[in-house]
Amino acid sequence: MSDIQTQFVKNVLAGAEIERKAGGSAFAPSNIALSKYWGKRNAELNLPINSSLSVSLGRLGTQTELRLADESAVYLNGESVDPADSFATRTLEFLNLFPMVGKHFEVRTENNIPTAAGLASSASGFAALVMALDDLAGWGLDKQKLSMLARLGSGSASRSVFDGFVQWHAGTDDEGTDSFAERLDAEWPEFRIGILELSRVRKPVGSRDGMNRTVETSELYNSWPVQAHADIDVIRRAIEVRDFPMLGKTAERNALSMHATMMSAWPPLIYLQPESIGMIHKVQRLRADGLELYLTIDAGPNIKLLFLESAASDVRAAFPDLQVIQPFG
Amino acid sequence: MSDIQTQFVKNVLAGAEIERKAGGSAFAPSNIALSKYWGKRNAELNLPINSSLSVSLGRLGTQTELRLADESAVYLNGESVDPADSFATRTLEFLNLFPMVGKHFEVRTENNIPTAAGLASSASGFAALVMALDDLAGWGLDKQKLSMLARLGSGSASRSVFDGFVQWHAGTDDEGTDSFAERLDAEWPEFRIGILELSRVRKPVGSRDGMNRTVETSELYNSWPVQAHADIDVIRRAIEVRDFPMLGKTAERNALSMHATMMSAWPPLIYLQPESIGMIHKVQRLRADGLELYLTIDAGPNIKLLFLESAASDVRAAFPDLQVIQPFG
Repeated sequence: MSDIQTQFVKNVLAGAEIERKAGGSAFAPSNIALSKYWGKRNAELNLPINSSLSVSLGRLGTQTELRLADESAVYLNGESVDPADSFATRTLEFLNLFPMVGKHFEVRTENNIPTAAGLASSASGFAALVMALDDLAGWGLDKQKLSMLARLGSGSASRSVFDGFVQWHAGTDDEGTDSFAERLDAEWPEFRIGILELSRVRKPVGSRDGMNRTVETSELYNSWPVQAHADIDVIRRAIEVRDFPMLGKTAERNALSMHATMMSAWPPLIYLQPESIGMIHKVQRLRADGLELYLTIDAGPNIKLLFLESAASDVRAAFPDLQVIQPFG
Repeated sequence: MSDIQTQFVKNVLAGAEIERKAGGSAFAPSNIALSKYWGKRNAELNLPINSSLSVSLGRLGTQTELRLADESAVYLNGESVDPADSFATRTLEFLNLFPMVGKHFEVRTENNIPTAAGLASSASGFAALVMALDDLAGWGLDKQKLSMLARLGSGSASRSVFDGFVQWHAGTDDEGTDSFAERLDAEWPEFRIGILELSRVRKPVGSRDGMNRTVETSELYNSWPVQAHADIDVIRRAIEVRDFPMLGKTAERNALSMHATMMSAWPPLIYLQPESIGMIHKVQRLRADGLELYLTIDAGPNIKLLFLESAASDVRAAFPDLQVIQPFG
C-alpha cells in the first residue's frame, strides 16, 4: 500500500462512520466489456486512459464472506489458499488498505464462474470483497464509492458493483475521485453471451504488464482512446434503440482493435492463439451467411459470442459446446 | 485508362523520343517490404499515404519479352493466358496507356518466384513490363521515371525497378510526379529471407480493396502513417550501421502494425490464418531463446523470416521446409 492509495481511501471514506458487525457478505457479478479498458494513466490508483462499457453476468460471479480474525486466512471455493499464493496476497494487501476496520481478516470466496472460460474473476472478486467489507464495517457507502474502492483492487472491478449495462467513466482527476462506474438505465432480456473455451494456454503476460507495454511501445495505441470514446457513445445509443447489429459490430471492432494495439506493441503481445483466429474467421463466415452473431475477446485467447435469443438455436447449432449466459436472468 | 492517368504518362514521358526496336526485354526482381505500403491517397495514380522500404530479391522475379503485334496476346510461363483472365486484362490495360508505342502487343512473361510462396508477382511483373516497354520504345528513361510508370500498374512495382534496399517516397504532389522509388546506397550480403508457405487459402479480399477498407473504417489507421514514417528512418539507420536486431524488430513491428490496422477495420480484415499465429508465436519463442530471428508478413497468411547468414543453420533446423533467399546474390 502506498501513500497515494491511503490518501485515496481516506478521501472516499470521508464522512463514513464505522458500525462494525460480526461479519459481512456480498455477491458481485462478473462482467464482460463491450468497449474495453486497455491502458492506465495511473497504476497505483488504477486510473484508466479510456472509459469502458460492460455487461454484468447476472448470477455468475463471486460470493464473499468476511470476518475479523486473529490471523488472516483466505479460502477459495472451500479450500484454504496458501498465503504465498498471489490470490491470497492480492486479497490481503487490498484489505491492508483498511486498518480502521481491522488488522486480520478471514476471507471466504466462492466463484461460480465457469472454470477456464476465460472470464476474469478479479473483477467480481474485488467488487464482492469491497461490498462485503462495507457490510462488515457498516459504512453504508453508495455504489459510486464502492466502485471507486473496488477499482483499487482491479480496474474492471469498478464495473462489477453493478448489474446490467455499466459504464466506467475514466475521469480526469489525478486523485481518482471522478473515476467510477455507473449503471445504465436499460435492460435487454434477449441479450445473450456465449462462452467458448478454445485454449488453456497460460497467458504469457498479465493484463497489467500487457497494458503498460502497449501504452509505452505501440504507436497505434495513440488512436485507441479516440476509438474507445466513440465506441462507447455508439454502444450506448445501440442499447437505447435496441439496435443489436450496431452494438455487435461496435463491440467486435472494439475488441479486435484492442488486440490490434497489443499486436503493434514490442515485443508483440499476441494473446490470440491459432484457435482464436479460426473462430474469428468462423464468426465472420456465419455472419456473411446472415446470422446476427458478433464476438468479443478479452486479453486472452478465448472468444465470447454476442447474440440475441432469436439467434440462439442457430448459434448453438454452429457451436455445440457453447455455454450460454443470460445477463438479464 | 483515365484522363488523369493519360496526363500522368504524358508528364513522365515529356522529352522522351521514340526510337522503336523490333522488341524489348527486361528482368525485374520481386521485393519484400520491411516497412509496408498500406493505404492510397489516390487510387488512379497509385499514390500512397505513406512511404515504404523494401529489399529486392536478387534473381527472383520476372523476365518479360515484349513485341508489337497485329493482335494482343499474353503468355505466362510459356502458356497462353485467356484474354479474359485478370492477369491478361491488367497487363493489356496497362499497355493501353502507351498508344504512342503501339496498339497491340505480344507479352511473354516468366516468373521464377517460388510458387505459392505468398510473394506478389505484380511488383516484379509491372516493373519488368515497363522496363521492356522502355527497351522496345527506345526512350532510355531513367530509373526514377521507370519507377513512376511501374507504380501506375501496381504500387509496389515502383520499388521493383531497383535491386538491393529500396525506398519508395510517398511524395506530396497531387499529380504524382514526386512519388517514386530510389535505391539506397547499401549492400548487406549476409542478409537472408526465409519463406514459409503456411496456407493456400485464397485471400478473401484483394490488397486494393483491403487498403480502402482500412483507410475508410479503421480508427487506428490514423496512427499508421506516423509509425511508417518513423520505421523507415530507423530501418535506414539500421542498414547504415549494420544493426540487424534494430532492423528486424522495426520490420516485424511494422508488419504486425499493418495487420493491426486491418484487424481494426470493419468488416475485420484478417489475412492471418491459424497457422500464421502459430508461426508468430514460434518466432517469438525462438527469439526469447536467443536466436536473432524476425519476421514480416504481407497482406496474406504467409510468414517471411528475416535473419543473417550467421543464424542460417539454426533457423533451418527450426524450419526444415524453409526456402532461403539471398537478396544480395
